[in-house]
Amino acid sequence: MIKPAVILLSGGLDSATTLAMARADGFDCYALSVEYGQRHSSELDAAARMARTLGALEHRTMRVDLAGIGGSALTDSNIAVPEAPTSGIPATYVPARNTLMLALALGWAEVLGSQDIFIGVNAIDFAGYPDCRAEFIAAFENMAALATRAGVEGQPCRVHAPLISWTKAQIIRAGVRLGVDFGATVSCYQADELGRACGRCDSCRIRKSGFEAAGVPDPTHYRAV
Amino acid sequence: MIKPAVILLSGGLDSATTLAMARADGFDCYALSVEYGQRHSSELDAAARMARTLGALEHRTMRVDLAGIGGSALTDSNIAVPEAPTSGIPATYVPARNTLMLALALGWAEVLGSQDIFIGVNAIDFAGYPDCRAEFIAAFENMAALATRAGVEGQPCRVHAPLISWTKAQIIRAGVRLGVDFGATVSCYQADELGRACGRCDSCRIRKSGFEAAGVPDPTHYRAV
Repeated sequence: MIKPAVILLSGGLDSATTLAMARADGFDCYALSVEYGQRHSSELDAAARMARTLGALEHRTMRVDLAGIGGSALTDSNIAVPEAPTSGIPATYVPARNTLMLALALGWAEVLGSQDIFIGVNAIDFAGYPDCRAEFIAAFENMAALATRAGVEGQPCRVHAPLISWTKAQIIRAGVRLGVDFGATVSCYQADELGRACGRCDSCRIRKSGFEAAGVPDPTHYRAV
Repeated sequence: MIKPAVILLSGGLDSATTLAMARADGFDCYALSVEYGQRHSSELDAAARMARTLGALEHRTMRVDLAGIGGSALTDSNIAVPEAPTSGIPATYVPARNTLMLALALGWAEVLGSQDIFIGVNAIDFAGYPDCRAEFIAAFENMAALATRAGVEGQPCRVHAPLISWTKAQIIRAGVRLGVDFGATVSCYQADELGRACGRCDSCRIRKSGFEAAGVPDPTHYRAV
């Protein structure tokens, strides 16, 4: 039986593992990347590599100009990416980002006849991001059931967030078991054009300590700083 | 007191009236149009005219490539726009369209510090569109309160859909009272590049009978067919 699923794929460690898990669950995977004006576009190259090596049937990149509205260190070069831990919602939070990416996934899922969307959000490492929490995912799913033709016809979309309560170490171990080449993923908020990481931003710090905690050698390409 | 609001503005009759109502309510209006690959791009020219003549402080057009996923007569030239009434959800339904447009509005609202989004959806004329119903709007609002920094900080966004239960005649009468120049709006699903209407699609039929019911002369520019 064919089970199509749309997988949001950023090119980072979490979404690559999520894609590998969806494949392992027997889904036919349609990978969706969103170019939203992020500074680190080498993430998108990494997404294309992951889609290919992890067996996605198709990979699409949709462009949305969130840089035009600003409001985040990831899309506005006037706002610095923090290099020390911060409390509360960090400057790297992108307004309504996951809502928008899930909306795009929902549209594609409906066209594909798919009832399954996967997103690699994680509530523990990204506790400061409101749209990485389980209650947000549940509310989106509830809204989606009312938003679409498929939902109205009794086939609502499920939003899978399998990593939501995992530690980074758990995610890394699962990815290693499923053959994810983490050296080819890009998580850094300010990666250079070759995908080399800064080693200092929140995302790099969380990733680095995840490899330590998992007891897995860190394959990340760091640039000289 | 300044009350910024984001108004989704398509260039059609409903969203123009919605903008005029938000202005009359004292909101500082930031108009947002979304170019999603619709066939009828003359709508966007109409949106720019409406933003200007109805006193929006700013008008932005964000581009999202929904044509890339297809699935609708409005974005896929292989699917015909119906010219006779249909039952159920029509071919002009665009998968997840309102979810996506509201997500973009939500992001901009957060950056602007606005807690108010206006959308001109109407449940009566567009009964076939799942994302034009009050329960969808309520579910989106509920999701948005969990999705954003503002929501988490106790300032959730309200989604106003003032036309949702109005007839087309009621909308037209309200717009006339507020000085909307309906002759400069474009509602037709297959308007030509000058914005001239076909007079035959669902949207034209609903609009035409709305003017009749309202007892207002129809100012629509129809093309010779």
